[in-house]
Amino acid sequence: MSRFDPTLYLVTDTALCSPRPVADVVRAAVAGGVTAVQVRDKTASRRDLLALTRAVQAALSDRPDVPVVVNDAVDVALVAGADGVHVGQDDLPPGETRALLGPGPLLGVSVSSAAELDAALALPTGTVDVVGLSPVWATPTKPDAAPGLGLEGASALAAAAHAGGLVAVAIGGIDAARAADVARTGVDGICVVSAVCAAADPEAAARALRAGIAAGRLAEAHR
Amino acid sequence: MSRFDPTLYLVTDTALCSPRPVADVVRAAVAGGVTAVQVRDKTASRRDLLALTRAVQAALSDRPDVPVVVNDAVDVALVAGADGVHVGQDDLPPGETRALLGPGPLLGVSVSSAAELDAALALPTGTVDVVGLSPVWATPTKPDAAPGLGLEGASALAAAAHAGGLVAVAIGGIDAARAADVARTGVDGICVVSAVCAAADPEAAARALRAGIAAGRLAEAHR
Repeated sequence: MSRFDPTLYLVTDTALCSPRPVADVVRAAVAGGVTAVQVRDKTASRRDLLALTRAVQAALSDRPDVPVVVNDAVDVALVAGADGVHVGQDDLPPGETRALLGPGPLLGVSVSSAAELDAALALPTGTVDVVGLSPVWATPTKPDAAPGLGLEGASALAAAAHAGGLVAVAIGGIDAARAADVARTGVDGICVVSAVCAAADPEAAARALRAGIAAGRLAEAHR
Repeated sequence: MSRFDPTLYLVTDTALCSPRPVADVVRAAVAGGVTAVQVRDKTASRRDLLALTRAVQAALSDRPDVPVVVNDAVDVALVAGADGVHVGQDDLPPGETRALLGPGPLLGVSVSSAAELDAALALPTGTVDVVGLSPVWATPTKPDAAPGLGLEGASALAAAAHAGGLVAVAIGGIDAARAADVARTGVDGICVVSAVCAAADPEAAARALRAGIAAGRLAEAHR
C-alpha cells in the first residue's frame, strides 16, 4: 500500500454479508469504488478473524492501492501483515497499539466526542493516523454506540482533526442518500457497513455512494 | 519469572470470582499454594482484559515466582509484559503466536486429543512449552469443550507430551476430591477454574488442592 485514500471506506460485517463470503462482497465493493477496507467481526475467534483477514487480502491481491485494516485485533493484523489497525475506545489504547504495530501501518481510532478526539490529538505525532467520527447517526450495527454527532458535530470534529494533522472519516448510518451531505462536512472519507454489506448488489451500492460523495464534494468546492 | 512451576495452575473466571475482584481471589489463592496464574476472560474487551491482567500482575508483584499468563490475547500479553500466553484451538495458531511473542515468554496450547497433541509436537522446538490436556472431565465453565479425556486419556497424552519435551497440565472438572487421582496420571500440574474461583475461601481451596496433589504424587512415587 503506497497511499491511503479514505474516500469510501468499507467496514465489513460478516452477518450482513451472509450468505455471501465477506471476501466476495469486498471484491465487488472495491470494483464499485471502495478505496479502503476494514475487516471487523467482533464475534469471530482470533483464528477465524485471521482467516477472514487473509481471505479479504487474497481477494484484493490485485488491488495493492486498497489497504486492508483490521478492527481491534492488533495480533491478527501483525500475523496477517495487514495495512493497519482500527481501535475503538474499548480496545487496546492507541499508544500501546502503535508500539506493537511499529511505525509503518495505519492506525485509526474511533472518537465520538470532542474529548475523545482531544485525547487522540494529545498523543505523540505518528501515533494515530485516522480518526473515525462515530456515529454520525445512530445505527443498528453498533447498538452500543454513542448518540449521533449529526452533520454539524461531524463537521466540527473533522476541522479539529485536520488542525491536528489527522485524517477524518465519518461513520454511522450513512447511505447513498446521505453521502453528499456527509461529504460536505469536510471529512476526508465516509465509512459504510450496512449500505454495502446488506446491499443486493455491493458493486452498485459502492458506485452510488461514490456518486453521492462526488456530488457533495463538488457542492462544497463551489460553495 | 525465573522458572515455571505448573503444580497448581489457576485459570481465572471473572464471573465466578464476582463480586470479589479477580485480583483479590488470585492473591488469596497464591497464598494457599497456586503456583501459576492464567488470566482468562473471553467476554472482556481488550482494554478491560489489559486492565485485568495488570491488576493481577500488581496483586502478585511480591511473588515473581508465580507467572502470569494471558489466555488467547497475544496483544494484551505483549502490552502487559506478561510471562506467557495460552492459546486454544480457536485462537491464533501456536507458530504465529510464538513469532509475535519472541523466544522468552511461555506458550501454552490446549489439546483435547492425540491428534491435537501431535500437531503441537510437530512444531519446531521452542514453539510450545506447555500443553493443557483438556478437559479431563466435561465442565460447565467451558460448555463448548470436547468430551472428557478421563484419567486414562490424560495419562496417555501426558506421557506423549513428556516424550516430546513438553510440560503437561490437566484441566477440566478437577476439584480437591479428584486432584490426587489426576496427579497420579503423571501430569506436571493441575489447572483449576471453579474449584478456586467459586470457592468461598480461595486460599483454603488452593491448600486443599495442593494437599490432594501431594497425596497423589506420593502414591504414584511409591507405586
